[in-house]
Amino acid sequence: MALAAGRAMLMRSGVRLGTQAAARGGNGARRFMNHRVVVEPNTVPGVAVIKFKNPPVNSLTLEFLTEFVICLEKLENDKTFRGVVLTSDCPGIFSAGLDLREMCGKNPAHYAEYWRAVQEMWLKVYLSNLVLVAAINGTSPAGGCLIALSCDYRVLADNPRYRMGLNETLLGLVVPFWFKDTLVNTIGHRASERALQLGLLFPPAEALQLGMVDQVVPEDQVQSTALSVMTQWLAIPDHVRQLTKNMIRKATADHLIKHQEADIQNFINFISRDSIQKSLQVYLENLKQKKH
Amino acid sequence: MALAAGRAMLMRSGVRLGTQAAARGGNGARRFMNHRVVVEPNTVPGVAVIKFKNPPVNSLTLEFLTEFVICLEKLENDKTFRGVVLTSDCPGIFSAGLDLREMCGKNPAHYAEYWRAVQEMWLKVYLSNLVLVAAINGTSPAGGCLIALSCDYRVLADNPRYRMGLNETLLGLVVPFWFKDTLVNTIGHRASERALQLGLLFPPAEALQLGMVDQVVPEDQVQSTALSVMTQWLAIPDHVRQLTKNMIRKATADHLIKHQEADIQNFINFISRDSIQKSLQVYLENLKQKKH
Amino acid sequence: MALAAGRAMLMRSGVRLGTQAAARGGNGARRFMNHRVVVEPNTVPGVAVIKFKNPPVNSLTLEFLTEFVICLEKLENDKTFRGVVLTSDCPGIFSAGLDLREMCGKNPAHYAEYWRAVQEMWLKVYLSNLVLVAAINGTSPAGGCLIALSCDYRVLADNPRYRMGLNETLLGLVVPFWFKDTLVNTIGHRASERALQLGLLFPPAEALQLGMVDQVVPEDQVQSTALSVMTQWLAIPDHVRQLTKNMIRKATADHLIKHQEADIQNFINFISRDSIQKSLQVYLENLKQKKH
Repeated sequence: MALAAGRAMLMRSGVRLGTQAAARGGNGARRFMNHRVVVEPNTVPGVAVIKFKNPPVNSLTLEFLTEFVICLEKLENDKTFRGVVLTSDCPGIFSAGLDLREMCGKNPAHYAEYWRAVQEMWLKVYLSNLVLVAAINGTSPAGGCLIALSCDYRVLADNPRYRMGLNETLLGLVVPFWFKDTLVNTIGHRASERALQLGLLFPPAEALQLGMVDQVVPEDQVQSTALSVMTQWLAIPDHVRQLTKNMIRKATADHLIKHQEADIQNFINFISRDSIQKSLQVYLENLKQKKH
Repeated sequence: MALAAGRAMLMRSGVRLGTQAAARGGNGARRFMNHRVVVEPNTVPGVAVIKFKNPPVNSLTLEFLTEFVICLEKLENDKTFRGVVLTSDCPGIFSAGLDLREMCGKNPAHYAEYWRAVQEMWLKVYLSNLVLVAAINGTSPAGGCLIALSCDYRVLADNPRYRMGLNETLLGLVVPFWFKDTLVNTIGHRASERALQLGLLFPPAEALQLGMVDQVVPEDQVQSTALSVMTQWLAIPDHVRQLTKNMIRKATADHLIKHQEADIQNFINFISRDSIQKSLQVYLENLKQKKH
Repeated sequence: MALAAGRAMLMRSGVRLGTQAAARGGNGARRFMNHRVVVEPNTVPGVAVIKFKNPPVNSLTLEFLTEFVICLEKLENDKTFRGVVLTSDCPGIFSAGLDLREMCGKNPAHYAEYWRAVQEMWLKVYLSNLVLVAAINGTSPAGGCLIALSCDYRVLADNPRYRMGLNETLLGLVVPFWFKDTLVNTIGHRASERALQLGLLFPPAEALQLGMVDQVVPEDQVQSTALSVMTQWLAIPDHVRQLTKNMIRKATADHLIKHQEADIQNFINFISRDSIQKSLQVYLENLKQKKH
């Protein structure tokens, strides 16, 4: 907790953890080794491929979020890297989004820590100085969709079983305003109104038409397309590209930063309700029974 | 006047008139009986159909607006209803919009009352807890278009004579900023700039392409399509859908609420000008002569 | 300089220079004669055609900007004119945008004067009471694109060599936020994010699809189409059209007006850097050698 809070403060004050700082990490060191987030040797100079490896569905557990952010920070601080492709190591799923077990049967302090980690992950991805290209090789609902929407470019596998969208209302949840802001920035106000209320998950052709992704390609070309798109982005000098990106995205990020504590409190209040806890328990029980 | 102001205050403070309160309504009771707004027995459980019946063109008179808002409030407070289809009982026209007779030859107090009623109607529709689907079975210019744009979903009859748009400039009027905000939220900034300045009325195919409506269907299927769309919306739990809707629409509504009194004063000043009064008189004279 | 500052102040306080004031202009009079901005005799009543004539590429020098603004002010104050078509007298190019020579090897006072002139030009075009239609008969990168985007309607010649976009990052520059705001208002947030970071220049078909222009027509019909579009716009009474335009565009203009001095300071700081000055020098040297 203390470490996570410390990280948040460091990020806020503009100081970033270097590779060494992350490795130092005291008794938390083992926790931050990249078990769930694998960085592949880059085939394109200056580009790393981050593979989400948190089976079975890359759900955004607290540990996954922490590893993912540390991993991005390392790459940002390593001047040999200018761009990152985000993709999944779990067949058929990009990321299932927030882990409901982090929101169920825990205490308020845990909910606060978890929600802050979700916020910090989004701020890190949305404002990254690196070029981020999502190679979406599986279904990406809810928080998985958010990660993709926060990249600079999205390539989706042309598989009708892969659906993408912010489907929180289907789970009895309300998306936080910054999920909404990110979607509105991508597909516009009207399409977002409908998609968010109905919790719509779009197949590739519809996702492309809505502008939720930039390209749909055959499944075996997702990563190669992402790498070739990356080349186009890396043709631009980093400094002016970063300043331009920041100028466009800053207002949206500031909206969260300004209301960050209230957003955490709001999450705790909502998730602590008996009715929400009960429905999450039922949902998780059903999931467990399906597996057996 | 006093009653309308009282209602506005009640709405502002979060208290809503129940069925009984509306029925009670003292010596104003008869006025609020649904003469101009007919609620049809619902064929789909939980869904009411509101038919505008203010012949010949469903213009938004003060009485119509008052009945419409009371009717929506009754349905919102009756827990058996979760969704409402809005449609017209007048052949060929959804609603002609604001009633120019309410703006012509009256005193400032009347203009104030009328404009507040228009504002309150929009706030009620735009932020309704009910799912609102517009079954647009006729032309819908100006205020008629605004009502449709403020619903959650729009189904338009495929009849090239039915046109839709905010054509105020053609009548020598300027739309208030919240009409503009509603249009921008629906079709975007650039399309709104052009449509509003030119007072464009779009035939169905163009309205669909612009995103001003969600679906265009044969005229005899408008209501059945609206009801079937409603089923999709009612599949979402009311509570999370309402919170999500409010999150998306709140900023736009707050924009009006914050400037509500200034907007009324602005309307009075504009409409009281000799030049405007004169052109409205000419317009209304012409309309009268056409009828004879 | 003093004159330019005085003009800026007059504009801010709502007073506008009449034809006479511009003609008076003391010892600066000759400077403001229309050498670089030619007003053609109008073929359509009430409509002037402004031709940019600053060869070879209509770059936005300080003198050009000053003439252009004075010319627009004259037309605004001459009640016989209601609309203006903006087009180019230089073959193959609408305008190459900001003149890099104004940003290179000069002192901070010059940079301040130049940047204020760019700002004032944009405010004048973006909020003009006249109907402005861009007849884009050539390539329009950077500031040239900005002028077109700030008109009320855009007609582009169907020539694949004519490209349009805000390509500042390709020149190692960052667009100011109000260039970004203008683009977002026209093509939306997501398309702007990509276009601005990559400095994309779009051929006519793509510019049309993105909504960056309203119409693409054969090259010899650009001006006639612009004039015929103008007729549609002039069918609307000036007063309500102007109020409507102002209502839609005011927030975007106010965004700059509120931060105008900071934006100037920001420009001076950025452009004064050694690295930027050096890369501009190299760029201008290369340009000079190409000519010989």
